[in-house]
Amino acid sequence: MPEARRPDSPFWVEADSVEGDLLRLDAEESHHLLHVFRASPGAPFEAVDGAGHLYVCELAGVERRSALGRIVAREDGAGELPGSLELLVGQPHFGAVEAIVSRTVPLGVSRIAIVPAERGERWRDTGARRERLVRVARAAMKQTRRTRLPRIEFPPGFAAVLPPPVSPERLRFVAEPSGRGWSETRGTGVSSHVTVAIGPPGGLTPAERASLEDLGFAPISLGSNRLRTEDAACAMLALAREGILALARERH
Amino acid sequence: MPEARRPDSPFWVEADSVEGDLLRLDAEESHHLLHVFRASPGAPFEAVDGAGHLYVCELAGVERRSALGRIVAREDGAGELPGSLELLVGQPHFGAVEAIVSRTVPLGVSRIAIVPAERGERWRDTGARRERLVRVARAAMKQTRRTRLPRIEFPPGFAAVLPPPVSPERLRFVAEPSGRGWSETRGTGVSSHVTVAIGPPGGLTPAERASLEDLGFAPISLGSNRLRTEDAACAMLALAREGILALARERH
Repeated sequence: MPEARRPDSPFWVEADSVEGDLLRLDAEESHHLLHVFRASPGAPFEAVDGAGHLYVCELAGVERRSALGRIVAREDGAGELPGSLELLVGQPHFGAVEAIVSRTVPLGVSRIAIVPAERGERWRDTGARRERLVRVARAAMKQTRRTRLPRIEFPPGFAAVLPPPVSPERLRFVAEPSGRGWSETRGTGVSSHVTVAIGPPGGLTPAERASLEDLGFAPISLGSNRLRTEDAACAMLALAREGILALARERH
Repeated sequence: MPEARRPDSPFWVEADSVEGDLLRLDAEESHHLLHVFRASPGAPFEAVDGAGHLYVCELAGVERRSALGRIVAREDGAGELPGSLELLVGQPHFGAVEAIVSRTVPLGVSRIAIVPAERGERWRDTGARRERLVRVARAAMKQTRRTRLPRIEFPPGFAAVLPPPVSPERLRFVAEPSGRGWSETRGTGVSSHVTVAIGPPGGLTPAERASLEDLGFAPISLGSNRLRTEDAACAMLALAREGILALARERH
């Protein structure tokens, strides 16, 4: 029989499966802990609930194939940015959305809105597709030790997203080849709440650009070569993430 | 018969297939231009040679199944950064290397070195694997309208890579949770030649860290959650890319 290995990522626990200092993993996560990692009573593991909580646990026992954990410590907001990082993206094909979710969750994205755009792709956000994206987000969240599951939304248009009003603390940027450089933009790097908009693979129409600028999105050029939707999203979020981290460092 | 479409990405041309104002595409690229895009004589297309040249062409004719292009304009260094951006990465599994190549070429990486590391994965850089990585790099280069194919290397260790000496113009950074923030680091954002080192999925050993610091790599923290090797590589390169672009903007 292979030796037990210590799990290297937290397990998922539904928020309503935590009661006092006990929590119960669902069937899939229990199988993983008990059979893949061969945990015995007393074995340490961690769990996250997607609502910002990290639970440090010991396996207390097994009840009807569910692993029960005794919570020995908890931490709020573990692995989360000291701010918020929102992404609006003109609808690309579904594979690109999966890539965006998988690649932007590690960067700390707190909300992903897939927005219909004139030059974007057209497909319906069926239940199966939403479920698939949540699974991708959850896996990325666990693997990168975040604790808060980003919201994934399908609003009817950019203007329908209604991010919080622009202020020195709440900035909005749109990737746009004719824009200014990130580090030329006033206020960059000193805001805790950033919303980033990225056009669909075919680009934004002039009307969409104008509408985003009316909403306070400052156009930002990311360089002279073409970036795919998912590359542009990650590049903008990496810059915005560093801004949020820099502000928190300054304040401490 | 479907209508001809204008190709949206450049074609690959071998540097030694360019002579005077004519160039010849290889069999695979010719098939693509002639049969997928159904180009007829006079049709416009672009080609890149991976050595920094973009050729704007018209289809001149077909000779033994090869498309011949008449060069009507050429541009040197199109889509390239005004500097260099090198990545050394502790060897992850091969799939992660493919992801790194596919994701960092759009960000302008000029050299990718896959380095054996104590906690890294172990596999041989066979000819087939190198060829696969070059194909991935070439596809990403064309799709993102770069013109220079990054070098992909397998040196025997971090110290064997010998990046150019550190100077205010040539900086080196290593991703390291205990490091300082990117924007706290003196000189950040004002260098045209940046080398970034990322540990393998298991992390760098203390000895590897010390050896990189001896080579002048400044430790940089990318935030409080865990980043996969490929996420860390992209986040660091996005920051370094913006530094290179910012410096070029300042100078013009």
